[in-house]
Amino acid sequence: MRLLSVGPPGAERPAALDDQDVARDLSAIVTVIDGDLLGDPGRLATIRDAIASGRLPVVPDGVRIGPPTARPGKIVGVGLNYEDHAEEAGAEIPDEPVVFLKPSTSIVGPYDAIELPPGSTTTDYEVELGVVIGRRLSRCRDPRTALAAVGGYLTVDDVSERSRIAAGPTWAKGKCADTFTPVGPWLVPPDTVGDPQALDLELWVDGERRQRGTTARMVLDVGGILAFLSTLMTLEPGDLVLTGTPGGVAALRPEPRPFLREGHVVEAEVSGLGRQRTRVVAVEETEVRV
Amino acid sequence: MRLLSVGPPGAERPAALDDQDVARDLSAIVTVIDGDLLGDPGRLATIRDAIASGRLPVVPDGVRIGPPTARPGKIVGVGLNYEDHAEEAGAEIPDEPVVFLKPSTSIVGPYDAIELPPGSTTTDYEVELGVVIGRRLSRCRDPRTALAAVGGYLTVDDVSERSRIAAGPTWAKGKCADTFTPVGPWLVPPDTVGDPQALDLELWVDGERRQRGTTARMVLDVGGILAFLSTLMTLEPGDLVLTGTPGGVAALRPEPRPFLREGHVVEAEVSGLGRQRTRVVAVEETEVRV
Repeated sequence: MRLLSVGPPGAERPAALDDQDVARDLSAIVTVIDGDLLGDPGRLATIRDAIASGRLPVVPDGVRIGPPTARPGKIVGVGLNYEDHAEEAGAEIPDEPVVFLKPSTSIVGPYDAIELPPGSTTTDYEVELGVVIGRRLSRCRDPRTALAAVGGYLTVDDVSERSRIAAGPTWAKGKCADTFTPVGPWLVPPDTVGDPQALDLELWVDGERRQRGTTARMVLDVGGILAFLSTLMTLEPGDLVLTGTPGGVAALRPEPRPFLREGHVVEAEVSGLGRQRTRVVAVEETEVRV
Repeated sequence: MRLLSVGPPGAERPAALDDQDVARDLSAIVTVIDGDLLGDPGRLATIRDAIASGRLPVVPDGVRIGPPTARPGKIVGVGLNYEDHAEEAGAEIPDEPVVFLKPSTSIVGPYDAIELPPGSTTTDYEVELGVVIGRRLSRCRDPRTALAAVGGYLTVDDVSERSRIAAGPTWAKGKCADTFTPVGPWLVPPDTVGDPQALDLELWVDGERRQRGTTARMVLDVGGILAFLSTLMTLEPGDLVLTGTPGGVAALRPEPRPFLREGHVVEAEVSGLGRQRTRVVAVEETEVRV
């Protein structure tokens, strides 16, 4: 099963791809794809049956594809969680993962624009496996139990402004911008995904491959990440967890480092979760939006 | 007008204090106190009239008081924003504020418990003026315009685990724990509050005063904070902004530094916004909550 949303920003409708990759409108049976739905096997089965029936309306061509889930209550990321990324960073693999937060206002759909912050010259890409929580998880020390709390997986580009991160003492300024978390195109339940530690990740800028990795090289696996995070804070249905990026980010490439520029097209894909395609745009510093 | 919520966690009902400080149940006229309500002068006027009528049901004694607003979409804090706090920290006042995020799962009501993270020995208090956004704000460079986006003010204790912040490179691990953001008791609209730069802040632990400050000594005032943050990310109705803490935190007091311990009672008050009273409790490391 591959869930998605269609329609204008803020007015998306739930949808799903059928076996012929045709998008079918789910509005008649669910109002929103959120954490509650992901934790409800009965409703998920109803959706599967409806898709299989072939009787759901087809989504017209040309309709915008939005983020595949409702806004998460929080976005939590872990850093330096791939062996090859830690190697290229010349960093020791930390005893426990670096943790950071992103605001839910940073989320955009899989074909929306990435807006460069005014004056930014070091905005970078990071393809990641995103995990949407399906069941509440708190102080769980067993990775296998934690893994059972996954509601679905999706492709994420964890866009990051490097100079604002390097300035410290927090990462917020470099991670918080609107449009810095393109998600999707699809949300895929765990039983469809299979082994989350056997997925390929790839990212291209203007057709040139910049990142290529596999979740097999995660330092902490998905269950381990969720168990660790759950000792710090409660994870709730709908929360989005970013599991780290493999090697190849612009910040760690030779000079001149190939950061994102206006007009670039970024494609990011995790195997089975679909490929997103976002265009990098500049916004005017003087623009005021109240 | 002083808004609050009453009832068990997750099932709070909106309420307001009348002129005799009696809590009146607002369920008949509003379902929730959220950002949409705060930005709607017509509905706020309806609430004022209903309270003045004296005909709303009285909230029975002994009912729990919850957080005075619905869960925020995000919590954004600024650091080192009081002259006296920067002085005691021996820190230069930064060119622009430090920015950090807290997850909305960290919010608890004004008389709920603060849970010490297992093993924590450096959990600290920070009384702050909290700002709830009433109108969307993006890339606004005028502090006066930004100030007009305020929907209400409330007392906040920005609880922080110092050793986890000091470990870096982010502040998330030290700010993210459940129960680390007690808010309320009241949410007070701007016209009731008057000048937000003329409010006293105080905090006591077991009756001993630890912090005493005034919003007059903020580095960036409320409008300035909101304008600055709006250049980094869109602030939306219901979002909570933490405006910094004055001097007196445990981490910057002489040894032995008086961090929070099991059994402590923390009281925090901002003038006109009510005094919260939270008890510090320990949680068992082995507890698993799925």
